[in-house]
Amino acid sequence: MTVCATSVDTRALAQSLFSEIREATRDGLGVTRESYGAGENTALRILEDRAEELGLGHERDRAGNLWLSLPEETRTEPFVAIGSHADSVPQGGNYDGLAGIVAGMLMLLQLRGRHEEAPPLRVLALRGEESAWYGKAYLGSLSLLGKLPAATLTRPHRDGTGVLGEAMSRCGADVEAIQRGEPLVDLAHIAAYLELHIEQGPVMVNRGWPVALVTGIRGNVRHNLIRCIGETGHSGAVPRWLRKDALLAIAELLSRMDEHWRVLLQMGMDLVMTTGICSTSAQSHAVSVIPGEVAFSFEVRSQDTQTLERFYTLMREECQAIERARGVRFEFDERLFTEPATMDAGWLQRLEAAAPQDMKLERMASGAGHDAAVFANAGVPSAMVFIRNENGSHNPHEAMDTEDFLTGVALLARALTGA
Amino acid sequence: MTVCATSVDTRALAQSLFSEIREATRDGLGVTRESYGAGENTALRILEDRAEELGLGHERDRAGNLWLSLPEETRTEPFVAIGSHADSVPQGGNYDGLAGIVAGMLMLLQLRGRHEEAPPLRVLALRGEESAWYGKAYLGSLSLLGKLPAATLTRPHRDGTGVLGEAMSRCGADVEAIQRGEPLVDLAHIAAYLELHIEQGPVMVNRGWPVALVTGIRGNVRHNLIRCIGETGHSGAVPRWLRKDALLAIAELLSRMDEHWRVLLQMGMDLVMTTGICSTSAQSHAVSVIPGEVAFSFEVRSQDTQTLERFYTLMREECQAIERARGVRFEFDERLFTEPATMDAGWLQRLEAAAPQDMKLERMASGAGHDAAVFANAGVPSAMVFIRNENGSHNPHEAMDTEDFLTGVALLARALTGA
Repeated sequence: MTVCATSVDTRALAQSLFSEIREATRDGLGVTRESYGAGENTALRILEDRAEELGLGHERDRAGNLWLSLPEETRTEPFVAIGSHADSVPQGGNYDGLAGIVAGMLMLLQLRGRHEEAPPLRVLALRGEESAWYGKAYLGSLSLLGKLPAATLTRPHRDGTGVLGEAMSRCGADVEAIQRGEPLVDLAHIAAYLELHIEQGPVMVNRGWPVALVTGIRGNVRHNLIRCIGETGHSGAVPRWLRKDALLAIAELLSRMDEHWRVLLQMGMDLVMTTGICSTSAQSHAVSVIPGEVAFSFEVRSQDTQTLERFYTLMREECQAIERARGVRFEFDERLFTEPATMDAGWLQRLEAAAPQDMKLERMASGAGHDAAVFANAGVPSAMVFIRNENGSHNPHEAMDTEDFLTGVALLARALTGA
Repeated sequence: MTVCATSVDTRALAQSLFSEIREATRDGLGVTRESYGAGENTALRILEDRAEELGLGHERDRAGNLWLSLPEETRTEPFVAIGSHADSVPQGGNYDGLAGIVAGMLMLLQLRGRHEEAPPLRVLALRGEESAWYGKAYLGSLSLLGKLPAATLTRPHRDGTGVLGEAMSRCGADVEAIQRGEPLVDLAHIAAYLELHIEQGPVMVNRGWPVALVTGIRGNVRHNLIRCIGETGHSGAVPRWLRKDALLAIAELLSRMDEHWRVLLQMGMDLVMTTGICSTSAQSHAVSVIPGEVAFSFEVRSQDTQTLERFYTLMREECQAIERARGVRFEFDERLFTEPATMDAGWLQRLEAAAPQDMKLERMASGAGHDAAVFANAGVPSAMVFIRNENGSHNPHEAMDTEDFLTGVALLARALTGA
């Protein structure tokens, strides 16, 4: 028996769910589904109603996440969870998160009448993946696994209206248990976590890949604020050898790191480097004043912890060399570290084996974070499938083709059933 | 007969003038002598009163500048003007400008009773050299020479209170003549313009030179605003080969230009380069967003017009190379050009010849602008002597040693008399 991922019903159901949820959470420009807030509640309710109509089992966990299942599933062996998140950034796109939940729902329906061909499957519609609302990502998955830092519950909403704990309470979450760090699910019962997600960068569009396998989710090392302190001076009267130009120091640092980055990519390492913020002081800078202080941020991401640490050390060493050569000094704020997550080798092989003969299934790292990283780092074998998507994400212009989406769903289904 | 530059009277007079004018124009932190305003008026009145007490001739020209002379001087041959400016920046230092006027006054007094040993000498206390007040420098000297652009008269005060023309009127200037561009002095009657000024950079302190000769005054080419436009993107999800990072583009540009600068200095060229302003967009930048637009300024200064033009062209060519390599584009605002000025070779030789055997008189370019540039570019043979000064200028911490000052005065006096 084969899985009919391209049946008309499947396509129609996906399209109608995407469309209904888009309409219900539309904000004029894009969609807005606030973490533990209105738009996310709306999306979960629509999913729940549709599950009810279709005869699927549905329940909320104590973190407020929605679970769907086949009522006829009675096996007690560990289940495979497949899902993604229901929330979005403000004025976001329709597919970031939602695509993975709909994918799970389609797979569940496709297993109807033959569910024992696959391991037990449950769909997980997570809450609060986007950090845009409370400055912290993975709220729903971390709460579920008992790993949300208690202090997160007092983080204020981006508009300053209330704190996360209150919002979670309103959504029915057991905030006390979450505060205690109590796992709300037995990890031993989760055999694997699978997630389908749109790619949030432009790689797949550029390479012409409709579907790709995610090898890992990049971790990062970050400084939100580094100050380079030199010495201001008259732009005409101070010669080069007496200057301590903080901007030229940073230009040299970034150029050196950019060149190291280029070489390390050539050597096959996984790495991205970004300085998103860099500014001379708006209060005191002037065209004819040598910059005496410049503030900038630094972020490096990699799938590999060692690469992260070594590139970070290289950056600090370059800073020291530049300090000596240019008479400036660098002052660093707190170093922030997010652990990379590795996708499960067994599931990667299973997905590759499930690909049709004519399908070249490429592997790539995810630069953006995903709930799969939370499960993977908790020890659950996890895997992700990326779907090609134009115009990036976190904006209303996301564009995922339904064909690509269905190709990804079919791949996951075949991997699950081993067909 | 020798000039006694180190006589007690000379030193005491200099110190009492510096002290009296400092006290009268003190603002709490430093001194404030507004161009065509209160502090400048105060300084000129004190100089005038002292000239009167000392039996010197004094008069104002139609640009409001103060001239001092020996009443016994009756020769009609072209005179040597020696002077500098009486104004300061807000919260400025006491010596920037004033030192050159006091120097002239001391020289005049030293010529008393033997003035025919030197060419006729007049001291010029100029107004309005600092651009801090009306955004334009050399107001007094340009007005005197009939070269102040008429539009400058309508420039607003830095506080938005009134325009330059009104302030000049209040100080007794003939604004109508200045507006017409009428020369208020016969250039044919000025044999030379000499100026003593503190160095505004740190070179002389670092090199241990009490006095130095100025070879020329650097001109500059400037863009107040260049925009580098790339493409924003997710800092994790966009790989290096698909990025159009505007900040890394500027880092590369500045690093390349910095390296060219280093090499050109090595080759003996006179050059300084400054990017005083550089900022990602405060509205839209973020640690995890690839910068899609960065604004920056660019200034190059040199004594040599060809060096200016060639370095500028080099910068534009590097921009084009970086545009091609990185998929960004640079947008330039209006190019601003200020002509360099060359000091008179004959006067430089005369000053060198006047130096005592044991004095090594070094030559250097002035990076900052001075009224001497206005006279030189009007065809008047001009020369400048720099006096060592600590802590830069345009701040209350200027520190000129009286000994260094008197050494400079003595040098000028000997060059004038040929003694």
